[in-house]
Amino acid sequence: MSFDPKAGPDVLISEVGPRDGLQSVKATMPTEHKKRWISALHDAGIREIEVASFVPAKLLPQMADAEEVVRHALTLPGLTVMALVPNLRGAEAALAAGVHKVTIPVSASEAHSLANVRKTREQMIDTVREIVALRNRTAPGVKIEAGISTAFGCTIQGLVAEDDVIRMAAWCAAAGVDDCGLSDTTGYANPAQVRRLFRRMRSEIGEKAGAAHMHNTRGLGLANCLAAFEEGVRVFDSSLGGLGGCPYAPGASGNVVTEDLVFMFEAMGVRTGIDIDRLIAAREPLKAGLPGEPLYGMTPEAGLPKGFQQGVSHVS
Amino acid sequence: MSFDPKAGPDVLISEVGPRDGLQSVKATMPTEHKKRWISALHDAGIREIEVASFVPAKLLPQMADAEEVVRHALTLPGLTVMALVPNLRGAEAALAAGVHKVTIPVSASEAHSLANVRKTREQMIDTVREIVALRNRTAPGVKIEAGISTAFGCTIQGLVAEDDVIRMAAWCAAAGVDDCGLSDTTGYANPAQVRRLFRRMRSEIGEKAGAAHMHNTRGLGLANCLAAFEEGVRVFDSSLGGLGGCPYAPGASGNVVTEDLVFMFEAMGVRTGIDIDRLIAAREPLKAGLPGEPLYGMTPEAGLPKGFQQGVSHVS
Repeated sequence: MSFDPKAGPDVLISEVGPRDGLQSVKATMPTEHKKRWISALHDAGIREIEVASFVPAKLLPQMADAEEVVRHALTLPGLTVMALVPNLRGAEAALAAGVHKVTIPVSASEAHSLANVRKTREQMIDTVREIVALRNRTAPGVKIEAGISTAFGCTIQGLVAEDDVIRMAAWCAAAGVDDCGLSDTTGYANPAQVRRLFRRMRSEIGEKAGAAHMHNTRGLGLANCLAAFEEGVRVFDSSLGGLGGCPYAPGASGNVVTEDLVFMFEAMGVRTGIDIDRLIAAREPLKAGLPGEPLYGMTPEAGLPKGFQQGVSHVS
Repeated sequence: MSFDPKAGPDVLISEVGPRDGLQSVKATMPTEHKKRWISALHDAGIREIEVASFVPAKLLPQMADAEEVVRHALTLPGLTVMALVPNLRGAEAALAAGVHKVTIPVSASEAHSLANVRKTREQMIDTVREIVALRNRTAPGVKIEAGISTAFGCTIQGLVAEDDVIRMAAWCAAAGVDDCGLSDTTGYANPAQVRRLFRRMRSEIGEKAGAAHMHNTRGLGLANCLAAFEEGVRVFDSSLGGLGGCPYAPGASGNVVTEDLVFMFEAMGVRTGIDIDRLIAAREPLKAGLPGEPLYGMTPEAGLPKGFQQGVSHVS
């Protein structure tokens, strides 16, 4: 890694807390607090945020203000504003709201697909095709990501064949998405599997191979991110304070903590473009908006190492 | 990695809880509980345990029963019984007690050396030489490890030059130790640094390059173990329940959790020789002997993944 201060970041940290995190907690964060939190994340240097999910408010009341939250996020310079859309109706709403990018959850596990979106995997690929067609017709500048969930195992069916994961990624790529990420929805992934799957996905779909979305359920979140990084992955999803998880993967809480992930990369000399002190400060509006909700993160608790300077090589 | 069920383990997990863990907590675990805990660790398949520290009882009352604990550990078949010795007097007592291996803490940071053993680094190398001479004279079968502490940074002096770390390892090797480990006493290490330092140490002292002793203070413990493994390290220190830390490195608690480390390796298909279920069961005698002491570990909390089988390749 070079240490040219004028160079851009080496990796993109895509913050998922305002969507993945907030939709997993019972309380609903008031809209004004969401806006303050998203602004604080942007202030810290985060340049991609999944700000909302476009789903019926009666299913996920936490996301009822998606449109207003997107409108606010669009005012922040240089920010890629992302939203999750599980179906065509959600995509219509997200595109109408003006997001820059949508992410579609596509399960590699048939059992999880039925539980999460009530569709078979093949039906979900049809949905992906419909959303791509809508985008091409109405908002050609918007990017589409497929997030292959349960890519490393499923709490309902157990093992997920790696062939199934790669087949889903290939189908999504063929259906016209811009990139495919792999999600460890259940916290089952290990670094060897992460290496194998990202390598296979890259050899199958080339530059459409996208983000690593890792969970820390069994403590392996950062090790899995490291393995993905060493396989060439440059986009990482994570959540401030480790907020979040998937409500349809029981017991599988714990997104990778943004603060710890950024610390790991910066300590390695891998530039994230994010100021760690400001990132830790962005926990305050999160706490204020969700009083009493437990937050995780070891770097915020322990503090930065003595003599630690961001962007400075410590090799001697 | 191969999956030959008759093959031995690929890595050695060296449990440090009964020494590093117990000396860091205020309460003293009763001797009978220590014995039960060590037996449970052995039952789980652990084959190297740092069971005690040979230091004056008035300094560390938690270790006053070191001799009796060693005597018990020596009855467990196939177990390498280790003890920490900070000085010649400790080494005399440990060798008299019949340990198989001693580990000597040698700081790479001058400030930490003075705080921890009240000696300069050069004075400590003299101590290493004296202990080696004693071993050669009285117990030539006993192995000696130097554990280079603060190898990745120091809470007192901040940065520790990598040249200093490698010089200390070279001096220890020249002084006659059998192997040199690198310890992240302060939880400052990052995976890039881990790779660099273990690579440099191996090129400097060859086969005497030894264990990785990582802390999880900033959440990077497993990522650092992964990086060390990929550099060829095959011995890893860890602590059941993450018990422990160094009392002279303020704020630097948190050994790598044995349960999570074993889960990571086994999930990767790297054989540890340890049964995870029995390892998790070994938390019970630890809890019984230290009531109310907080234990860590995400795998014990989350449980093993659905369909997970130890020693079986999950590649598909």
